[in-house]
Amino acid sequence: MTKMSGLKPKHFNWRMEGDVAVISLDRPDRKNPLTFDSYAELRNTFRDLVYADDIKAVVFASNGGNFCSGGDVHDIIGPLIDKDMKGLLEFTRMTGDLVKAIIGCGKPVIAAIDGICVGAGAIIAMASDLRLATSASKTAFLFTRVGLAGCDMGACAILPRIIGQGRAAELLYTGRSMSADEGERWGFFNRLVEADVLEAEAIALATRISEGPNFGHMMTKTMLAQEWNMGIEQAIEAEAQAQAICMQTEDFNRAYKAFVAKQKPVFEGN
Amino acid sequence: MTKMSGLKPKHFNWRMEGDVAVISLDRPDRKNPLTFDSYAELRNTFRDLVYADDIKAVVFASNGGNFCSGGDVHDIIGPLIDKDMKGLLEFTRMTGDLVKAIIGCGKPVIAAIDGICVGAGAIIAMASDLRLATSASKTAFLFTRVGLAGCDMGACAILPRIIGQGRAAELLYTGRSMSADEGERWGFFNRLVEADVLEAEAIALATRISEGPNFGHMMTKTMLAQEWNMGIEQAIEAEAQAQAICMQTEDFNRAYKAFVAKQKPVFEGN
Amino acid sequence: MTKMSGLKPKHFNWRMEGDVAVISLDRPDRKNPLTFDSYAELRNTFRDLVYADDIKAVVFASNGGNFCSGGDVHDIIGPLIDKDMKGLLEFTRMTGDLVKAIIGCGKPVIAAIDGICVGAGAIIAMASDLRLATSASKTAFLFTRVGLAGCDMGACAILPRIIGQGRAAELLYTGRSMSADEGERWGFFNRLVEADVLEAEAIALATRISEGPNFGHMMTKTMLAQEWNMGIEQAIEAEAQAQAICMQTEDFNRAYKAFVAKQKPVFEGN
Repeated sequence: MTKMSGLKPKHFNWRMEGDVAVISLDRPDRKNPLTFDSYAELRNTFRDLVYADDIKAVVFASNGGNFCSGGDVHDIIGPLIDKDMKGLLEFTRMTGDLVKAIIGCGKPVIAAIDGICVGAGAIIAMASDLRLATSASKTAFLFTRVGLAGCDMGACAILPRIIGQGRAAELLYTGRSMSADEGERWGFFNRLVEADVLEAEAIALATRISEGPNFGHMMTKTMLAQEWNMGIEQAIEAEAQAQAICMQTEDFNRAYKAFVAKQKPVFEGN
Repeated sequence: MTKMSGLKPKHFNWRMEGDVAVISLDRPDRKNPLTFDSYAELRNTFRDLVYADDIKAVVFASNGGNFCSGGDVHDIIGPLIDKDMKGLLEFTRMTGDLVKAIIGCGKPVIAAIDGICVGAGAIIAMASDLRLATSASKTAFLFTRVGLAGCDMGACAILPRIIGQGRAAELLYTGRSMSADEGERWGFFNRLVEADVLEAEAIALATRISEGPNFGHMMTKTMLAQEWNMGIEQAIEAEAQAQAICMQTEDFNRAYKAFVAKQKPVFEGN
Repeated sequence: MTKMSGLKPKHFNWRMEGDVAVISLDRPDRKNPLTFDSYAELRNTFRDLVYADDIKAVVFASNGGNFCSGGDVHDIIGPLIDKDMKGLLEFTRMTGDLVKAIIGCGKPVIAAIDGICVGAGAIIAMASDLRLATSASKTAFLFTRVGLAGCDMGACAILPRIIGQGRAAELLYTGRSMSADEGERWGFFNRLVEADVLEAEAIALATRISEGPNFGHMMTKTMLAQEWNMGIEQAIEAEAQAQAICMQTEDFNRAYKAFVAKQKPVFEGN
């Protein structure tokens, strides 16, 4: 298994809080835009997380009062203008691969969103498992504003499942900001918190989840994606198999023994 | 056709209110846990309901102030610890088969939830078509608390379709209780009612639905499951066929004649 | 490309507001029922819209204080009673084809709903991309009231994606009216507005969307339907391809140039 807690990424911030990796973008002066480099390194990092057994959960945090301003106009959109189809598809697949990597990383990912959360930033929030936000957060899927379609990095498939088809359609056609209150009412945000405790609350939630059972959490995350377009009968069979696998873990045994002993179980992830 | 109104189950309560079967679990002193026996008998009963023409709808009621405390730790989890994969899969398939049987039973099922509604109890509520609850209800998909995954009996497929992907993910990872107010806001509960009228309100709703058209209701229930993962064009064609079938029922004719005569139609289910 | 702005339909109203086509039904004295003729002409019109480059968005408006009272009992239900299966399926496919045509027309469709919106009227609202409504609107999927099933014109597939499975099931089984407040809380309506500005607000929203990028909007609409039952990984790849196509449009270039020049982009739809 890869150890990742000592990771020193070049293009974003990374630190550990216990077993929780805390990621944030590192250009707060510009509200944390993404670049070709940070896209690629984030994709690779989330891909590697599958194999890391020293990371139990991830917080994708804000930095300097903002989450992420999306793909930088000068660094990304400018160069894209001159690319041919081969080059364009390489780019859109790289960004899509980041979403696939977040969904496939095997660890719960909690986005902690303050301030600006737009474009690919809104997508990273959407691709996370859980989302906390401040009342100052502004989340916009603003691809139409730059002349493109709302179907970016999986938004037409994933956003409707979080907030419903009608609300998703409005955000994707108009590119307008979703307010924090709307986001909470609509189920995009799990909870609104004050800005000064946003990161701490996200880490606390991630820590609680990271106490396990982490094999179970990995399976929950896997099946949420795996059953995406299964028939309902097939999904139930798939869960019968997945849960039977989980029943052979020691953590299931530990939970039972702790219950009988009237203690709190201590999970170990196997 | 099987007649089921006189059913005398061994492991749960059963009574008729007109054409509505009212089921409840029968161990209120322990908040109504499930056992291997009650799982199996419920599964068989819901399977048989497909063929029963003397039952038009089902209420799954609470008993003694609680809905269901899930799989009993001593009666179920203890024995599972010692099972091999063959035995585990037999169990998880039996529980999944209960959900399949509820979904496939051809009659609308209304859960009436008071107090504790956890584990497999929360799943039974989720697998029902409609849900009424009291403000005292506490619903938790707490599989992670016993060392397992959230993917139990179809939860990763079904719960997101009821309350949205983000809220479902939170409940499935953390195992925390969903309050009655949350449940109503999120669309899990169709309505909150007072505890002393919970069962009566559920029976009234079931009775209203049981007045028919029951062939139509059976088709609605069938198609809600059948179209689960169809393409949108295929779903529309499937409904064109299903509704054309319904247009050959006498109930369609009865409704038309009643309309012309300015009367209320009396449906007969054929 | 077909020009459609001068269209003179026989069985519904049609006018242009800029690039926005405004459709309404034309029997306000009877709350705007549908007939065999208006169904067919609407289906053909929405099919033709795919090829029209002088229409950028559509408003489906109310007329005389009501949206649509559904299939007329005398004009439609009466004749259906006497049809054989071939004739019934011709009818249910024609109505389903209207939904397919709305979904496939390539232009955003905004329903503006006042008063009665029932049966096939509720379905037209559901099949639209966005929905504004007044507090007096009453929306009912009342197929069970005429002896049929809730699975009509795609309702069992589409309605759950907009308002959630539990709320959709209640509306489809009972046929009861959804109030305007419920519709807004549940995500069916994007916004409630006063009756005297309903149409103007819908046209304003459609106009804002019609300012483009219209190639992008067409792709958003296409992919919202196209990814309906794709796997999540397949949806992300599909969007990588779709967005790469959009990056070859002039509108993407125009947006970039406008940004650099600190101007508002003017999109042209290519």
